[in-house]
Amino acid sequence: MVSGPSGAGKDTVIESLRSYEPDLEYCVSVTTRPPRPYERDGIHYHFTTRDNFEKMAAAGEFIETREYAGNLYGTPRRTVEEALARGRDLILKPEVNGARAIKARYPGAVLVFLTPPSTAELERRLARRQADSPEAIEERLRIAREELAALADFDYRVVNDTLAGAVSDLRAILTAERLKVARLAGRMGLRHDTGNPV
Amino acid sequence: MVSGPSGAGKDTVIESLRSYEPDLEYCVSVTTRPPRPYERDGIHYHFTTRDNFEKMAAAGEFIETREYAGNLYGTPRRTVEEALARGRDLILKPEVNGARAIKARYPGAVLVFLTPPSTAELERRLARRQADSPEAIEERLRIAREELAALADFDYRVVNDTLAGAVSDLRAILTAERLKVARLAGRMGLRHDTGNPV
Repeated sequence: MVSGPSGAGKDTVIESLRSYEPDLEYCVSVTTRPPRPYERDGIHYHFTTRDNFEKMAAAGEFIETREYAGNLYGTPRRTVEEALARGRDLILKPEVNGARAIKARYPGAVLVFLTPPSTAELERRLARRQADSPEAIEERLRIAREELAALADFDYRVVNDTLAGAVSDLRAILTAERLKVARLAGRMGLRHDTGNPV
Repeated sequence: MVSGPSGAGKDTVIESLRSYEPDLEYCVSVTTRPPRPYERDGIHYHFTTRDNFEKMAAAGEFIETREYAGNLYGTPRRTVEEALARGRDLILKPEVNGARAIKARYPGAVLVFLTPPSTAELERRLARRQADSPEAIEERLRIAREELAALADFDYRVVNDTLAGAVSDLRAILTAERLKVARLAGRMGLRHDTGNPV
């Protein structure tokens, strides 16, 4: 899982990571948030209505859901379970609390906290994202500060200083995790066994 | 720490790793074993007599010692403590039981088990090492089989299939361990704090 503050650059980093690691599957989240101009349905998110989201949640179709800045987000159970049944590693991009909820369910999951180099840089990135209103940016910043405080629950911290550096760090984490003796023995169950997502 | 069966290729792999990672210090062990033809005192080992080794041990100059195939080996305390006091990462090449002893003393230490691709390959490598007698090879093979059984105590397993692949894996482990949140917080103490060797 790659999580972290809004504005940390998760989408860009994950897109680049996937180009280097074609074996890595990606779990597209479901959200009630309106798409940003560049976002495509089924690629960046599955966009849906709040009504439909709530029906899916009631039917047990999510392994975790969370409300974030007034919108609902969920991780679809079927995508995760199917990838794991095939012994594939899977990348998720949950919000911070979602990451914690998934880790509680899949203890072998690996949590990476992606963070911008500094709070100033974070503010700059959020301000550049023209789609959001000043109020929305302020709210996102407040949440981002809370998220940074959650760092202690994560396994790794990657600073998104340069894209190439962050992707290189993520690839090193992926390689190292696959070499863990505990995973070879199936105790932590990242691959080919009890089904835990990266 | 890079440990594993005799014949796994630890020396070659560590030498190559150090050429890519100049910040990584290397802890030269002390041994009573006679040098092999290519080995130089102070580079591969500090070679010494059994008498002198035992004096050093009695003076508390080792963080661990072990007897292996009739020879004594020790990890010098001063090298380790000095590197850690300077906040440097340090690579050690203990035998398997030595690795366990060091891990018990430095819980943040990282144990990598380096293994040849197969037992057949291991036998071939040991036989090629002309310095050893057939009996010594048989004894080393017996110990190597025991060591493989010790894998469960290690953090990572790296298969030395090709030198480039093994070194790449070790570099990924080094990068990933440096990104661990637990180390950033100083809880595991790899760097800049309580003094634990890699």
